[in-house]
Amino acid sequence: MKVFKIPEATVGRLSVYSRFLCQISKKGVITISSVDIAQGVGVSPAQVRKDLAYFGEFGTRGVGYNVKDLYNDILKILGLNKRWKAVLVGAGNLGMALCTYDGFKERGFDIVGIFDDDPQKIGSKVNNLEIMPTESLPDIVKKNQVKIGIITVPSEYAQDIADLLIENNVTTLLNFAPKLLSVPRNVIVRNVDLSVNLEILTFNVTNQIR
Amino acid sequence: MKVFKIPEATVGRLSVYSRFLCQISKKGVITISSVDIAQGVGVSPAQVRKDLAYFGEFGTRGVGYNVKDLYNDILKILGLNKRWKAVLVGAGNLGMALCTYDGFKERGFDIVGIFDDDPQKIGSKVNNLEIMPTESLPDIVKKNQVKIGIITVPSEYAQDIADLLIENNVTTLLNFAPKLLSVPRNVIVRNVDLSVNLEILTFNVTNQIR
Repeated sequence: MKVFKIPEATVGRLSVYSRFLCQISKKGVITISSVDIAQGVGVSPAQVRKDLAYFGEFGTRGVGYNVKDLYNDILKILGLNKRWKAVLVGAGNLGMALCTYDGFKERGFDIVGIFDDDPQKIGSKVNNLEIMPTESLPDIVKKNQVKIGIITVPSEYAQDIADLLIENNVTTLLNFAPKLLSVPRNVIVRNVDLSVNLEILTFNVTNQIR
Repeated sequence: MKVFKIPEATVGRLSVYSRFLCQISKKGVITISSVDIAQGVGVSPAQVRKDLAYFGEFGTRGVGYNVKDLYNDILKILGLNKRWKAVLVGAGNLGMALCTYDGFKERGFDIVGIFDDDPQKIGSKVNNLEIMPTESLPDIVKKNQVKIGIITVPSEYAQDIADLLIENNVTTLLNFAPKLLSVPRNVIVRNVDLSVNLEILTFNVTNQIR
């Protein structure tokens, strides 16, 4: 499937819908309407229908959606019908928070390596994984065929770590360093800048957007 | 100033532009073109011009932008021409990462209270601030006239903490718990869901969007 021009906000909401569907499926709900999904996650029913319409026909008019089918369909759209192996570089507070974040595992992401060059951190364990020096990264990445790299090092090291990951064929990067990375065209980077999030808030407050 | 329908992505980029302008201003650069800004942050020059055009006329045709003026104008648009006081609830790894994140202070955000109900955490210090029980929150918020609350507690406590903040007139929330909060209309919430970020990546990889 090749999909073009799907708004990123739609993809983000699919992720939210799928978690809601997972919850209600566990409660034994078999079918659900777009109105109920909308209410469950806090968007409008039209938004739910519009988001799903990008990917084809789901559900039956007058009956609604089969919860399990829709859940599985969305997981497939998001690429979550299989598990993903990731490595994380930078075992500071943020790195540790991400490694111990249960949400990743639940959704199919397995962190198989944690790297840091601080001698005081190397050897200590997080979630049964030993923190290793970055020189061990190529081996671990190769052995596990890792495709996702999570960067939580300070800004000044972010580009070097990105380069190291890319050299080792890790072509999907989640970057938490407040630094724009330059990468080849075949690499996908997603920047998560924590300050930007706070600043979108202050913009909204300042300009009274609610 | 009342601004409508500014895409959130534009606001996010303004935040990035302003950091770039701050860097080059420190290097002594006086004027800059949209082409150079674009190159510095990794977007197209047309994008830079379009983003700025939402907010009026900046720069002089053929000369470019005055770096300091544009920087100050963007800070003002983002509401960052003043300092913001924030409290943080949930002193886990993520909470600690945010408290010790220099980027917040640099951009005008002062965390004036850190709260957690874990007896083992209460009393220990982070960045010269003592972790306090949530029962102290109302006092600290009132004394400092705090308007921003950062929520880093586990999902099951997120709504209670949001309610507590809102009761105490904290009407701007940055929520890291993977849980949609129900809040009154006058409250602004921004959800930062770390899994969603990873899932937008796997969507892009799965669908070959680069």
